[in-house]
Amino acid sequence: MKGTMLYGPGDIRFENVPDPKIEEPTDAIIRIAATCVCGSDLWPYRGISPSSEPTRMGHEYCGYVEELGKGVSSLKPGQFVVGSFAASDNTCPTCRIGYQSSCVHRQFIGQAQSPYLRVPHADGTLVATPDEPQASMVPGLLASSDVLGTGWYAADAAKVKPGATAVVVGDGAVGLLATLSAKQMGAERIIVMSRNPARQRLARNFGATDLVAERGEEGVAKILEITRGFGADSVLECVGTGESMQQAMRVTRKGGHMSFVGVPHGVEIEGQSLFFSHIHLEGGPAPVRRYLPNLLDLVLSQKIDPSPVFDLVLPLEQVADGYKAMDQRRAIKALLRP
Amino acid sequence: MKGTMLYGPGDIRFENVPDPKIEEPTDAIIRIAATCVCGSDLWPYRGISPSSEPTRMGHEYCGYVEELGKGVSSLKPGQFVVGSFAASDNTCPTCRIGYQSSCVHRQFIGQAQSPYLRVPHADGTLVATPDEPQASMVPGLLASSDVLGTGWYAADAAKVKPGATAVVVGDGAVGLLATLSAKQMGAERIIVMSRNPARQRLARNFGATDLVAERGEEGVAKILEITRGFGADSVLECVGTGESMQQAMRVTRKGGHMSFVGVPHGVEIEGQSLFFSHIHLEGGPAPVRRYLPNLLDLVLSQKIDPSPVFDLVLPLEQVADGYKAMDQRRAIKALLRP
Repeated sequence: MKGTMLYGPGDIRFENVPDPKIEEPTDAIIRIAATCVCGSDLWPYRGISPSSEPTRMGHEYCGYVEELGKGVSSLKPGQFVVGSFAASDNTCPTCRIGYQSSCVHRQFIGQAQSPYLRVPHADGTLVATPDEPQASMVPGLLASSDVLGTGWYAADAAKVKPGATAVVVGDGAVGLLATLSAKQMGAERIIVMSRNPARQRLARNFGATDLVAERGEEGVAKILEITRGFGADSVLECVGTGESMQQAMRVTRKGGHMSFVGVPHGVEIEGQSLFFSHIHLEGGPAPVRRYLPNLLDLVLSQKIDPSPVFDLVLPLEQVADGYKAMDQRRAIKALLRP
Repeated sequence: MKGTMLYGPGDIRFENVPDPKIEEPTDAIIRIAATCVCGSDLWPYRGISPSSEPTRMGHEYCGYVEELGKGVSSLKPGQFVVGSFAASDNTCPTCRIGYQSSCVHRQFIGQAQSPYLRVPHADGTLVATPDEPQASMVPGLLASSDVLGTGWYAADAAKVKPGATAVVVGDGAVGLLATLSAKQMGAERIIVMSRNPARQRLARNFGATDLVAERGEEGVAKILEITRGFGADSVLECVGTGESMQQAMRVTRKGGHMSFVGVPHGVEIEGQSLFFSHIHLEGGPAPVRRYLPNLLDLVLSQKIDPSPVFDLVLPLEQVADGYKAMDQRRAIKALLRP
């Protein structure tokens, strides 16, 4: 088959790769219904996380069970499944408390931008839909695999409660779906930091009540003004730079909760600033598996629709165009169909 | 009157200072029953936090209401009271969610090592005992003012639950009372990092089930061994250095809770380490006022006895000897009687 390879900064190729095979009895092979490009794929694409050799790409996926290892007991061929970007056994002590993305047997998925994918720990990782979903549901289900699950974690880890004031730092796909998640969890006021008109519009549709275009000192001042000087109960940091982390810390109220869900790049948190900010802080790779059953239910029952973050749909073989469009911020997120 | 002044590293003097007076209608003047030297007093004493001019010292106190401003409504002269090291109005939005030590009108107490003390925001800051306490109760009540309250916050912010495994990093007075607090909150296993025999003994008496004398890499390895490789549910960081913070992060289980309650000195937390450690983190100046009613009740009913941390009792005029003994680690904590 053909799959997506990154050769170096800006160099994405769709080329011959080995067909995936069952390697462990707990594996499944999935025929991909849809995959996509993640904001985190742009770190190596931009050369910020350098890769020393050609690398297979992609970790967001949904599709049909094609083949199962002998040890897989909960799935059947033909079922439609969604899995997390982090394969997990879902039985270890870490999984049992809901932190599946730090499972002791965790394996990060990394070859999903291709027509077929091997998924380790299939019983633990994959969640099947009750029936075969309508084609129109596929983008929403795909989103659950990472970008929605990560936005949901941002809201959950920042302890968004009904009636709360939330701030979302970042208007990428994760930030936008963190906005949707905060709305779904009952936040009354949702302040989104965004200066891009298309993203501002989407943020409004997902539940933003206030938009702050200012950044840095000015952005902080604006949010403090909106929150009567106190800062917000819940702050969802969805970027992962030193500047965005600082901004998020400074607009969280004393005793409030801040989450951070993007892999930090070049971030150092100064001890005394954190101490006197007096906040709760939780971050890490989103434990998407914990949320998947609920998210699939919310999507299939049409209580939420995360699919508008996919503003570009391409055939899989044009994957390189998807990276380019996202890199140039012409697209929020590119969905790829094999 | 005479009061305690720090002139520079190692230079504590007990000398003439102005008598405190009511300055605001919300003030109270307290006749000190007992005060003490805090671990945090040693930072400037050792010249690590340099002070540019002679500074009044002391922020832990209990005693009798001597005089009240006209605006104080909840207290009467002669009552025995305990207050936090951070004066707070106890009515602002930050106080109302239990973060009184970050009150918008916060004033840090800083002149308590003297016979009389002015306490701002007396209604919000001071808690009176139901009756005049017996003399034997005074050390335990004094401890509630900061060192016990801070240890309690360490356990509370690290979400110690019945049956949990807790690690206490640090065997100073705060670490020892964090141990007592974790025990009181129902921790089943309490691992205390300590290499000093006298402090180890006290840690055992307060509830430690395991003592780890090793530090750094070896200390981390030992705790991971005890916790079957997973780390502890709750980790209470009671030192405030970069090394102790690192140690604490590395022995917290994924999804677990870590608190830090000493003002950090020279601490930088690297973003990716924190991200992949996947912990909850909360720290800051302990909101002692939130806990005071409960702590006074626990002390007066003799359910807990924090007083053994005071292993040196001196007349107030010998305050300089108290600092010296703690600096040289000959004493855990010096209680001072006017």
